[in-house]
Amino acid sequence: MRNSFGQIFRITTWGESHGKAIGVVIDGCPPGLEISEEEINLELAKRAPGKQPHTSPRKESDRAEILSGVFEGKTTGTPISIIIPNRDADSSKYEPIKHLVRPGHANYTYLKKYGIFDYRGGGRASARETACRVAAGAIAKKFLSQFGVHVEASLLERGEIEEGDSAGGVIEGRVEGVPVGLGEPVYQKMEAVLAQAMLSLPASKGFEIGEGFGAAKMRGSDHNQRPTGGTLGGITDGEPLVFRVAFKPTSSIAKPQETKTLTGEKAVLTLPKGSRHDPCVAIRAVTVVESMSALVLADAILMNRSCFTNPSL
Amino acid sequence: MRNSFGQIFRITTWGESHGKAIGVVIDGCPPGLEISEEEINLELAKRAPGKQPHTSPRKESDRAEILSGVFEGKTTGTPISIIIPNRDADSSKYEPIKHLVRPGHANYTYLKKYGIFDYRGGGRASARETACRVAAGAIAKKFLSQFGVHVEASLLERGEIEEGDSAGGVIEGRVEGVPVGLGEPVYQKMEAVLAQAMLSLPASKGFEIGEGFGAAKMRGSDHNQRPTGGTLGGITDGEPLVFRVAFKPTSSIAKPQETKTLTGEKAVLTLPKGSRHDPCVAIRAVTVVESMSALVLADAILMNRSCFTNPSL
Amino acid sequence: MRNSFGQIFRITTWGESHGKAIGVVIDGCPPGLEISEEEINLELAKRAPGKQPHTSPRKESDRAEILSGVFEGKTTGTPISIIIPNRDADSSKYEPIKHLVRPGHANYTYLKKYGIFDYRGGGRASARETACRVAAGAIAKKFLSQFGVHVEASLLERGEIEEGDSAGGVIEGRVEGVPVGLGEPVYQKMEAVLAQAMLSLPASKGFEIGEGFGAAKMRGSDHNQRPTGGTLGGITDGEPLVFRVAFKPTSSIAKPQETKTLTGEKAVLTLPKGSRHDPCVAIRAVTVVESMSALVLADAILMNRSCFTNPSL
Amino acid sequence: MRNSFGQIFRITTWGESHGKAIGVVIDGCPPGLEISEEEINLELAKRAPGKQPHTSPRKESDRAEILSGVFEGKTTGTPISIIIPNRDADSSKYEPIKHLVRPGHANYTYLKKYGIFDYRGGGRASARETACRVAAGAIAKKFLSQFGVHVEASLLERGEIEEGDSAGGVIEGRVEGVPVGLGEPVYQKMEAVLAQAMLSLPASKGFEIGEGFGAAKMRGSDHNQRPTGGTLGGITDGEPLVFRVAFKPTSSIAKPQETKTLTGEKAVLTLPKGSRHDPCVAIRAVTVVESMSALVLADAILMNRSCFTNPSL
Repeated sequence: MRNSFGQIFRITTWGESHGKAIGVVIDGCPPGLEISEEEINLELAKRAPGKQPHTSPRKESDRAEILSGVFEGKTTGTPISIIIPNRDADSSKYEPIKHLVRPGHANYTYLKKYGIFDYRGGGRASARETACRVAAGAIAKKFLSQFGVHVEASLLERGEIEEGDSAGGVIEGRVEGVPVGLGEPVYQKMEAVLAQAMLSLPASKGFEIGEGFGAAKMRGSDHNQRPTGGTLGGITDGEPLVFRVAFKPTSSIAKPQETKTLTGEKAVLTLPKGSRHDPCVAIRAVTVVESMSALVLADAILMNRSCFTNPSL
Repeated sequence: MRNSFGQIFRITTWGESHGKAIGVVIDGCPPGLEISEEEINLELAKRAPGKQPHTSPRKESDRAEILSGVFEGKTTGTPISIIIPNRDADSSKYEPIKHLVRPGHANYTYLKKYGIFDYRGGGRASARETACRVAAGAIAKKFLSQFGVHVEASLLERGEIEEGDSAGGVIEGRVEGVPVGLGEPVYQKMEAVLAQAMLSLPASKGFEIGEGFGAAKMRGSDHNQRPTGGTLGGITDGEPLVFRVAFKPTSSIAKPQETKTLTGEKAVLTLPKGSRHDPCVAIRAVTVVESMSALVLADAILMNRSCFTNPSL
Repeated sequence: MRNSFGQIFRITTWGESHGKAIGVVIDGCPPGLEISEEEINLELAKRAPGKQPHTSPRKESDRAEILSGVFEGKTTGTPISIIIPNRDADSSKYEPIKHLVRPGHANYTYLKKYGIFDYRGGGRASARETACRVAAGAIAKKFLSQFGVHVEASLLERGEIEEGDSAGGVIEGRVEGVPVGLGEPVYQKMEAVLAQAMLSLPASKGFEIGEGFGAAKMRGSDHNQRPTGGTLGGITDGEPLVFRVAFKPTSSIAKPQETKTLTGEKAVLTLPKGSRHDPCVAIRAVTVVESMSALVLADAILMNRSCFTNPSL
Repeated sequence: MRNSFGQIFRITTWGESHGKAIGVVIDGCPPGLEISEEEINLELAKRAPGKQPHTSPRKESDRAEILSGVFEGKTTGTPISIIIPNRDADSSKYEPIKHLVRPGHANYTYLKKYGIFDYRGGGRASARETACRVAAGAIAKKFLSQFGVHVEASLLERGEIEEGDSAGGVIEGRVEGVPVGLGEPVYQKMEAVLAQAMLSLPASKGFEIGEGFGAAKMRGSDHNQRPTGGTLGGITDGEPLVFRVAFKPTSSIAKPQETKTLTGEKAVLTLPKGSRHDPCVAIRAVTVVESMSALVLADAILMNRSCFTNPSL
């Protein structure tokens, strides 16, 4: 449903950027998998700001804590609850702009949908929610490693970053070691589920697999000889999965911007001094793309297992 | 699950291209909606071949029949079952190539996944399955019309079509009259569900919304002034939804192609004389993109209704 | 959702008692299972009236037809669509009573919920819908037979049947050969899913497993020594599953009954001459209880397979 | 799925009796509902031991904390995460019996299913998990109060409690103020969902609605005049919902019991001194039955809203 992803290896995330904590419940992870908080925190560290240039300088030293589902270092088959406390939540500086529509930002649509909006931050639309996906992704990666499946993502291109403005980027995801036969043929085609996963990321605007939009300009005799991107008919064909995700530039920028108030009058938005926003969200999204890929693949393996007997799984 | 799409306005499709019939069950359509077989068949006719140049000449005069869920011309709130008989199914000519991998085609992956493959046609991977989506989409469109929501799609670009080869294309989808507040903020963002819907179409390789991949090259100060594509934070903002879907060239082509047998030896594939395949699947996919858009929007309205009180819905 | 049952081995039923046909789509049946229309029709025949004394004399020689999902006598892993045409649908005789509330019958609540009601018969509330469950159950039984799991049900007790009145009954279900470990521990406990399945049957009013309501009067030292009914903590323990389902007497009876009109005035209901209703629904429900048990078990095996490796499954 | 309940108003519970904490995520609660930790804790206090005679003397002063989804005292429409820390978890005394099958207890089936078992307590099978249902139920009750829907449960009968042994009981649930039209007609009949909810409670062995098993002995002319129990055809009819749930005697008793080791040898089980187990689980289950009823009703209202326009909801 709304805050859950996956059919069998299913995550449910919760929490707002300015609340007490955020977290995730993983339901459907098989028992007997070795996992530690340390492994999860190593993944979270990859996503952390300050690790890369051009990421927000917040000291966001996230520490995940496992509250259930792991006993003596192994998963038990029961729900794994992970909590990540929020820190550093001085939100008073957002008060002066709480009546303004923030261009490219969810505050207007949230207010319209929910009739209420936590002006202090992005609420559930905040990129902070993705930390929970990374925590769950760490477990999915561990699960996949048993089968020799390996996910990785990298920043393929990004715009120039200038003072006061922001830039977009494209991330390429790759999954190696994928067994033949994963994915379900119609509405849960491997690329369909990957596309949903990737477009569910804040600021993502596009997804393509294999030759992607380039395929639209090719002839069949040519395209049939190209790498498939890893699927045929929505089912993995044993080749690496290769796809790309487009991210728009961060909508929160230091420059003043023309906008409206929530009641429709013209206004100028200037973010409070000291607001911390990555000028290019695509940089930190690399780890999140990896995590979502891992979640999709782990779920596909378990879905496949339910009906099919693949000796390698 | 596998052959279902949607949370509340939910379709389940069934049937193979060379079986007796194909069909769809629509569960969750509100009662009291006027609908006739004629309206459904008008939509099916739009998708039919021969209507446009460069579409397969099969006389596929599909006729949908409503078997349940409609009484005295109105939906009753119970499942609507629609059946479309298959005709014209001489499949003996596929016998000679049943041992060959068809490049770009699902026969190899299906065989690996299911251990069985109906060599006569594409099985569930066949574009024929999309007729069911169009039939269900006709009802979704009718439902949407009550709220002034209108979906349409058009072929934005396509390759040159030459004898013996095939071409790809890009379809643009537009939804006008969208109320503010549809879509769920995290894993069911409007664009995430649209992306899944579009990548679930046979031969689709990419999806983008708003500025899409172009956004990756922009600056925030610029991108924030562009049309949003209809969503902010995954929730509709009242602007038209605008997105594009890339289709690869049809994989079945008249030209002989190098391939392998299912047991791995080199071979040449020549499709049987009289095989009928659209040289550009994107042409007929226009109606299907519209239908999937309608299904996504109808479901989003019902999902939204469950928790929120929007006076216009 | 509404008209679907099961997580992996999932059925969706459709159709009204007085429409053109009823049917079921089975999504998630593993490929390679041998199944024929004949086997399905043998199950349907068990449920047919006239086979047992005290069942409605309608000549309901139901014939199921498989429209998809089976190729050369074996399931292909794609959705299995089964259709059962309706016959014998002279419904004009119900016209005179269409303005009356029928005691114990769903016509009042349907009208209130849907704002529309197909007065000709019970609509989706009709016991006719259960024929679809029996058709799907035939496939589930076949699936279970591979693992030595065998379901059976019998009429444990029923009231005396007198001219013009109806009687209730209790059915006992038994599942033999159940492997240890099926069922999910919290909301999908084996007994919870069985209870939902059984209370979803028309006219059922109660479910109990093991010692059932009798357990409420026992001491722990005694109860711990009794047969478990086949589960501990919601998970099968290797003992036979044994449960009972209570059915109320058929609400449609030949005797005149005091009632109201749909607008609230006092009235007397006399069913049209020649109305055919089983005086004891529990008699024909035996096959349906078996079928639902088979569906629950088949789904539990596939759910269990997704996360756990049980060598016997 | 496994640890979730509900379609729209959906809860996911997590946590073991002897871990750090237990908790629940509520996804799908409409925004704008006033709720406080205090209201939740008042409900938890009702379930707490020591409040009633014959309940376990553990000082289980549970305190729920809301971590997300509530802002300035109102729900925001985003997931509500509630955590209840575990205290008092000296589990070393269970070490001596960890190799024994505990009669009527889930440790054997868990071990068989998961290959791992947290011998310290009941794991997910523990009645402690029900505290999460009560916390979520507090919010559901608040939601229902807006519509004048009121749930309550009471202990209808229970066995004598003697030193060293345990007793069963029967709880009656009642829901007053139920609008007509709730429940979905086939697999989600109101009584089917209630039955699943009630049989998902630890130690419950039976469910009946209206006349229940008594109906099996009646004639139609009689039964049609009795109270319906609140549903007709699975849909609420505006009468109070009235149902009963049977609970077996607590399986953990002070008396020594004959049993087996996990490897099959005869043994005698004597629970460690100071083990705390309610001699009659039905006593504390009253609040849990209420909570589950509230969750079922809240979900039914939201499901109904998605497709139907009921002016009173």
